Amino acid sequence: LVQALGDKIHPQEILEHWDDLPGEHQYVLLTYLDAEAAAQIFSELDPEDQAEFLETLPPWRVRQILEELDPDDLTDALQAVEEEDPALARQLKEWLDPKTRAEVEALSAYDEDDAGGLMTPEYVAVRAGMTVDEVLQFLRRAAPDAETVYYLYVLDDEGHLVGVLSLRDLIVADPSMRVAEIMNPDVIHVTTGTDQEEVARVMADYDLTVVPVTDDAGRLVGIVTIDDVIDVLEEEATEDIHRLGAVDAPELVYSRSSAWELWSARARWLVILIVTGMFTSTILAGFSSVLEATTALAFYIPVLLGTGGNTGNQSSTLIVRALATRDIDLSDWPHVLFKELGVGVLLGLTLSALIALKVALDGFLGVTPVVALALFLLVIVANLAGALLPIALEKLGLDPALISNPLIATISDVSGLVIYLSVARVLLGTG
Amino acid sequence: LVQALGDKIHPQEILEHWDDLPGEHQYVLLTYLDAEAAAQIFSELDPEDQAEFLETLPPWRVRQILEELDPDDLTDALQAVEEEDPALARQLKEWLDPKTRAEVEALSAYDEDDAGGLMTPEYVAVRAGMTVDEVLQFLRRAAPDAETVYYLYVLDDEGHLVGVLSLRDLIVADPSMRVAEIMNPDVIHVTTGTDQEEVARVMADYDLTVVPVTDDAGRLVGIVTIDDVIDVLEEEATEDIHRLGAVDAPELVYSRSSAWELWSARARWLVILIVTGMFTSTILAGFSSVLEATTALAFYIPVLLGTGGNTGNQSSTLIVRALATRDIDLSDWPHVLFKELGVGVLLGLTLSALIALKVALDGFLGVTPVVALALFLLVIVANLAGALLPIALEKLGLDPALISNPLIATISDVSGLVIYLSVARVLLGTG
Ligand SMILES: [Mg+2]
Ligand SMILES: [Mg+2]
Ligand SMILES: [Mg+2]
Ligand SMILES: [Mg+2]
Ligand SMILES: [Mg+2]
Ligand SMILES: [Mg+2]
Ligand SMILES: [Mg+2]
Ligand SMILES: [Mg+2]
Ligand SMILES: [Mg+2]
Ligand SMILES: [Mg+2]
Ligand SMILES: [Mg+2]
Ligand SMILES: [Mg+2]
Ligand SMILES: [Mg+2]
Repeated sequence: LVQALGDKIHPQEILEHWDDLPGEHQYVLLTYLDAEAAAQIFSELDPEDQAEFLETLPPWRVRQILEELDPDDLTDALQAVEEEDPALARQLKEWLDPKTRAEVEALSAYDEDDAGGLMTPEYVAVRAGMTVDEVLQFLRRAAPDAETVYYLYVLDDEGHLVGVLSLRDLIVADPSMRVAEIMNPDVIHVTTGTDQEEVARVMADYDLTVVPVTDDAGRLVGIVTIDDVIDVLEEEATEDIHRLGAVDAPELVYSRSSAWELWSARARWLVILIVTGMFTSTILAGFSSVLEATTALAFYIPVLLGTGGNTGNQSSTLIVRALATRDIDLSDWPHVLFKELGVGVLLGLTLSALIALKVALDGFLGVTPVVALALFLLVIVANLAGALLPIALEKLGLDPALISNPLIATISDVSGLVIYLSVARVLLGTG
Repeated sequence: LVQALGDKIHPQEILEHWDDLPGEHQYVLLTYLDAEAAAQIFSELDPEDQAEFLETLPPWRVRQILEELDPDDLTDALQAVEEEDPALARQLKEWLDPKTRAEVEALSAYDEDDAGGLMTPEYVAVRAGMTVDEVLQFLRRAAPDAETVYYLYVLDDEGHLVGVLSLRDLIVADPSMRVAEIMNPDVIHVTTGTDQEEVARVMADYDLTVVPVTDDAGRLVGIVTIDDVIDVLEEEATEDIHRLGAVDAPELVYSRSSAWELWSARARWLVILIVTGMFTSTILAGFSSVLEATTALAFYIPVLLGTGGNTGNQSSTLIVRALATRDIDLSDWPHVLFKELGVGVLLGLTLSALIALKVALDGFLGVTPVVALALFLLVIVANLAGALLPIALEKLGLDPALISNPLIATISDVSGLVIYLSVARVLLGTG
């Protein structure tokens, strides 16, 4: 029955409802589905779930799944088991055939965030001296094992990557021509240590569906396929969005995190920010004579600080995203400074006019210039802080997205109070 | 010279430095580079730049570029010209050969955010009765024009999509077999009206590099390729990140926006938020007797409101991203409610303990329970608002990312003050 189901339904359709299935159903599906479908589902699960199933599924099935998995996915799964149960991982590795075991061991050596950790060794390699016809014969034998057959890589005797050939070129070419005549010798490639974001960038810029990976000596060691890069792009966008919201747990999956896990992913930043924010009470206490002399001043503190935070959030958002998409780079900082100075002045004038109107309508004419001038200055300062701090982080080699919206809001709260109360002291001559 | 340059450098490398080139250099490159390279560069430019070059480049060159462009990119470029100069657009269309003109007209009918606006009609279609050998012969002729030859679509007499065949299957198959025997009849496809985000989701889930697009009657009308979908994913992530930062200009490109443009993209939300935030001064004025009776209360307003905003930003960030990646959906709202109630209580306890310590150390023992209790309640409220408001927007058919970090901060400022001053009135019995 389960096998009949597997024939009718694409594994992806099962995956879509996977999280809603009770654990026993998941277990039954993975045990009795066609081995290829089971492996396909398995390869898309979270690492922790993969480790759990490898521990609990019947050994005959585990062997089948391991055999069906692509080397890159197999490596990821075994790395997950390794973390939870090193003894089991060792045993599973013994079950692999020697060639696969060697591949897994080679792949395990690379950082999972680099091209080496994304690649699979199942590419098709040919020699420059082969004829088109020989290549097609070879391809018929090699096709079932390769991850993709649409790009063939041309290697010299030492395994250096010297050219690339598409199956399209091959089909169109005269069968007696040599590979050397039709290959493209300028191969866009990455190396095993290239960061996954850079791999994604290269593939997007050059519209590639596969990119070859070489070692530092230029020898071909694997290929990265676009399906894995799409997952990288999604992960990287999640990481940036989470960081901008001050949730520093890039790999957190909401639906699978308990309240405790969420608490621990969030508490760290909130604690840092509340401790920083406590300076505001010290500042207010220090300026209490100013506040007591003119009680209306206190009424406008929240809207003033809130507006400063909102302005800084906008500029940091724009700059963090522009850096991530390479719309701007480090060397653009003077442009950003001047542009945001201009934008800050424009926004400051707009918002000050509004707040001045409100304060005047409230009947506090004496306080009106204080609030308006303070807001004007704060908007400019918060706007520049939001724009320049991400660039400064990038300059330090850190992720610009660590300048989160809450951090900017907190910085704006502290500097906003100092600005406001200093302006009040000067203009009102009190305290 | 420029042509020699074009032979040596990949168009993408020119594109990387495009924005740093003076306008005249861009013009010279587009005029004298090899036409294919020029078209490739042209297709990656912003729509406004495309329109400008089509207006200013010499007519012979414009014709060459139009001929080299793929129908999907050509349609986008002509749509851009149409907006600026409808007369020129009409003239350019007259230069196209009749087949291309018909394709462009068909493609122009679709919404640019749907599959119809992303697709190209340059697919390869075959009949179920053809033999493998016949298909290969056909492919040799059709290959140069098609966007991809790696997936062939099988159509019946009325043009309905009935199967898909990969070039890999074809290469491995016996030359005398019929297409019907080796094709896969379960074709994953989208329709012309499928939203681009859904297209991206289908391609990512099923690991496709090409997806066929049918009309509502199931007739094949085009294909969407992964390179265009990667651009969609980047656009959609930018849109979400900008919205979360309260910059409601999804297509804004930072480096090409003037200070005025940035001002207008940002001022709308800031104005809405400052007007909303003005309620805080009304609230404070309303509770002024409470504040005057215990002046220390005012010292903790900024840190209290800031912490509420930070907490709400975290939960809205997590939920907006979980909805965008389909980690959770609308039906999960009761789970989210309970989970965030739990997280809110845990975070509230953590943060209240810290603030109580600070207030007590400041020597305001009478105010300590007021600040601590108010922060505990505010953290729970802001956390729930951040989690549930994006879900409510999605339920209304709006983009959950419209719940921006600044909006949550402003909501938290207003509700935080009401909570704080009410708690003070009750616990201190003043006012
Ligand atoms: Mg890996
Ligand atoms: Mg691209
Ligand atoms: Mg893979
Ligand atoms: Mg994969
Ligand atoms: Mg990263
Ligand atoms: Mg990143
Ligand atoms: Mg705030
Ligand atoms: Mg289009
Ligand atoms: Mg995928
Ligand atoms: Mg295209
Ligand atoms: Mg394209
Ligand atoms: Mg959209
Ligand atoms: Mg969206």
